[in-house]
Amino acid sequence: MPRGVGELSSDNHSAADNQQERLIEIGWITGFVDGEGCFSINFIRQPGRIDRKGYHTGYQVAHEFVVTQGAKSVECLHRLRQFFGVGQVLVNRRHDNHKEHLYRYVVRKRDDLWNEIIPFFERYSLRTSKRNDFLKFAECLQMIRTNDHTTIGGMIKIVEIAETMNRCKPRTEIIRILRDYTPNIRW
Amino acid sequence: MPRGVGELSSDNHSAADNQQERLIEIGWITGFVDGEGCFSINFIRQPGRIDRKGYHTGYQVAHEFVVTQGAKSVECLHRLRQFFGVGQVLVNRRHDNHKEHLYRYVVRKRDDLWNEIIPFFERYSLRTSKRNDFLKFAECLQMIRTNDHTTIGGMIKIVEIAETMNRCKPRTEIIRILRDYTPNIRW
Repeated sequence: MPRGVGELSSDNHSAADNQQERLIEIGWITGFVDGEGCFSINFIRQPGRIDRKGYHTGYQVAHEFVVTQGAKSVECLHRLRQFFGVGQVLVNRRHDNHKEHLYRYVVRKRDDLWNEIIPFFERYSLRTSKRNDFLKFAECLQMIRTNDHTTIGGMIKIVEIAETMNRCKPRTEIIRILRDYTPNIRW
Repeated sequence: MPRGVGELSSDNHSAADNQQERLIEIGWITGFVDGEGCFSINFIRQPGRIDRKGYHTGYQVAHEFVVTQGAKSVECLHRLRQFFGVGQVLVNRRHDNHKEHLYRYVVRKRDDLWNEIIPFFERYSLRTSKRNDFLKFAECLQMIRTNDHTTIGGMIKIVEIAETMNRCKPRTEIIRILRDYTPNIRW
């Protein structure tokens, strides 16, 4: 075989291999996140800072995509970090009788979630009930992007969505406080 | 475009799509099993049946590949069942304060594990530390196929491998019993 043809053939082969590997990687990420991932929306009381943009309601919204693994499998989390190009791998040291430290791949920044994480899982669907959590998470992020969370009405809606996510932690206390709350600002 | 060409093009397109979907499916299975799967080897005392093939040592070896999900995601388990073409989806009903029943995709038959499950995960590697459990599981199955488990020496080796799998449950009691055990048969 002429050298050129061999090279071309080998290049084509390698491009096809890379494409195969990438599709398997994409599938692996969706499966692993179906098993170990978590999309969560939380609320942090910030009553003394209602003059700050985003805290007008007395609450800050915290949004997080997390995948957790023991120390033995931390390499997988670094791989996720490399794939998405955003977020961090953080250690959660355990000094009790657990056998290994826990590691968490965490993405918290709004832009990183909006530009990298959400488009990926919109294109490549999760298959467990975690898909519903993801869709609610994306809906909350969309509302936050349009500053709905700076109004009491918008924040109550986000809290109501969040309380149906994951283990369905009731948020009645936060909703009650928000409904009773009349800070000295326009909303 | 002539009808035939259009059909061919559409067929090619659909074949490429199917291939893409299959690769993503394969990736999804490896990722999901990395998160939620379990390969386990257990030992069941069978002291009264040492005349039966496989129980010569006084123990029966039980081998199992399991993936567990809550009722809301049971569809994923049926999909695994369909993909591998072996095993069963079983319900583990929970009547206490848990919100939903648990379901388990379970493959226990030796031939099914050997012909379907093991070759798949040999070809498409797991990426977490569960890969080590899988390799040990496959090693035990290989030993069982060559009837090593019917000898005390072989069974002790299988127990020693099994005690390093999953949560590293010590098997010192079984090993002690096996070492002390001298049934009235040749081994």
